[in-house]
Amino acid sequence: MTLLALLDFAAVLVFALTGALVASRAQLDIVGFAFMAALTGLGGGTLRDLLLDRTPIWIVQPVYLMIACAAAVLVFFTAHRFESRYRAILWLDAVALGVAVAAGAGIASDMAQPAIIVTVMGIATGCAGGLMRDVVANELPLVLKQGELYVTCALAGSLALLGTIALGLSGNAAAVACVLVTAGLRAGSLALGWRLPVYKSRPPRS
Amino acid sequence: MTLLALLDFAAVLVFALTGALVASRAQLDIVGFAFMAALTGLGGGTLRDLLLDRTPIWIVQPVYLMIACAAAVLVFFTAHRFESRYRAILWLDAVALGVAVAAGAGIASDMAQPAIIVTVMGIATGCAGGLMRDVVANELPLVLKQGELYVTCALAGSLALLGTIALGLSGNAAAVACVLVTAGLRAGSLALGWRLPVYKSRPPRS
Amino acid sequence: MTLLALLDFAAVLVFALTGALVASRAQLDIVGFAFMAALTGLGGGTLRDLLLDRTPIWIVQPVYLMIACAAAVLVFFTAHRFESRYRAILWLDAVALGVAVAAGAGIASDMAQPAIIVTVMGIATGCAGGLMRDVVANELPLVLKQGELYVTCALAGSLALLGTIALGLSGNAAAVACVLVTAGLRAGSLALGWRLPVYKSRPPRS
Repeated sequence: MTLLALLDFAAVLVFALTGALVASRAQLDIVGFAFMAALTGLGGGTLRDLLLDRTPIWIVQPVYLMIACAAAVLVFFTAHRFESRYRAILWLDAVALGVAVAAGAGIASDMAQPAIIVTVMGIATGCAGGLMRDVVANELPLVLKQGELYVTCALAGSLALLGTIALGLSGNAAAVACVLVTAGLRAGSLALGWRLPVYKSRPPRS
Repeated sequence: MTLLALLDFAAVLVFALTGALVASRAQLDIVGFAFMAALTGLGGGTLRDLLLDRTPIWIVQPVYLMIACAAAVLVFFTAHRFESRYRAILWLDAVALGVAVAAGAGIASDMAQPAIIVTVMGIATGCAGGLMRDVVANELPLVLKQGELYVTCALAGSLALLGTIALGLSGNAAAVACVLVTAGLRAGSLALGWRLPVYKSRPPRS
Repeated sequence: MTLLALLDFAAVLVFALTGALVASRAQLDIVGFAFMAALTGLGGGTLRDLLLDRTPIWIVQPVYLMIACAAAVLVFFTAHRFESRYRAILWLDAVALGVAVAAGAGIASDMAQPAIIVTVMGIATGCAGGLMRDVVANELPLVLKQGELYVTCALAGSLALLGTIALGLSGNAAAVACVLVTAGLRAGSLALGWRLPVYKSRPPRS
């Protein structure tokens, strides 16, 4: 199994965990957990595949669906152990974002897409599943949370992947660089408050 | 006309009625009714067709669009007769869910997809139209309503279809079984409060 | 470059401006601006292309993505000059709607689709980008705003395009007619309160 395929599995698994945790916050039943897990875990990859005119990977390899369902069952029986499920969602989402961006950008890069499309596919694969999760759960999407880096992490990770390849390193090294940059930036934003200057309608004056 | 095609028409019609009723609650004009009716009536089937790499059925057979528009006109002039439009939406949605799950799972089964994909297509076709309706109308999606069976009904109906086929019965019998199980479970949940145990963050202690 | 291609560029640009303005109201950073600009600018055309089984235009011609990013940068540095960003969004959205409906209906017409599909593609291309923008930003979609014409404008514009072609005039003339009818109706609704009768659950009595 290639590293890229492994990352794709990992992205599905970890995003599915966050979807199931959102289901636990909404106090759904086990089927609701599986629904939210599958939507979140598979949403980003499905969007990427539809855009690139590929058959969604989980239709070809249903094991992806089983991973999402396993994540749902796992969370259904263990979510009460998390001290703060919201914090757990945030941190798992950071890991999933890193892995999914690498999988998305890596697959587009393997298809010899131009750099800008590789970047967009990294961002779309990374952000779409969580976005669908938040929209369906009627919560403000993480991608729109003010004063946090989110899409920026996906952008930086995709650029790291492209840069590593441009340096002549292997696709696997590029994928690892992408995961580290994406998840690292997101973790820095969550834990240390890293951010970009945000738009202010009226700059403060002294 | 095959039973499967008939079910597909019926699913569009009944889901379109629920979309138009949501439009009536939002006090839209006739074009807004048609927009919500078409989105709700065609959304699930369109998602299924995009995932299975088929051309959406209503592009090939525009009569589907006309059915959705007819539903919009019908509701525009009769919605004031409903005592409770919200109850009407819930019950029509239950019927539509049953019919749409059968149409979605049936078509995937006819394409010789594996059982897990048949199940997912049943759920996606059944749930996506109503989900889009609720997301666009900024309401909490029915699929996420706590303490009610919804996705579970679609899952059970898809399994009923697969089981009936596995017993050697005809595709038509399987479709009928699917409609009855899906809509019956949903009706039981609405009328009698049938439900699965939901996740509780803190189990009650005595 | 054909007029149709020019309209498609213009639709992306102006919708992207509205997306960036929504980002400015949410006080996002520059990457958040680009995300909302790309989603809004490219969402409608992407939906149209997926439905018609074409590769999304921005994957083939990444210049579309650059236009959206340029709109984001422009708004990031100038949005504070707008007296009311909400009014700016409404009016730019009206222009974008006109241009996007013409681009969507024109492309479907060039593909020799039947009239009803041309109409739907005009409406979908015109309305989907703004709808995604509003759903992601958790605002009530403009398409659902009571007492305003919105989908109706897209419908009338698509019919104007079909009518002009039926009269034997050129595709360019038809596109111009479509822009004028769509944006004109929407402007009339915004400025002068034009509307269709809306559904009322209880008609007023004297």
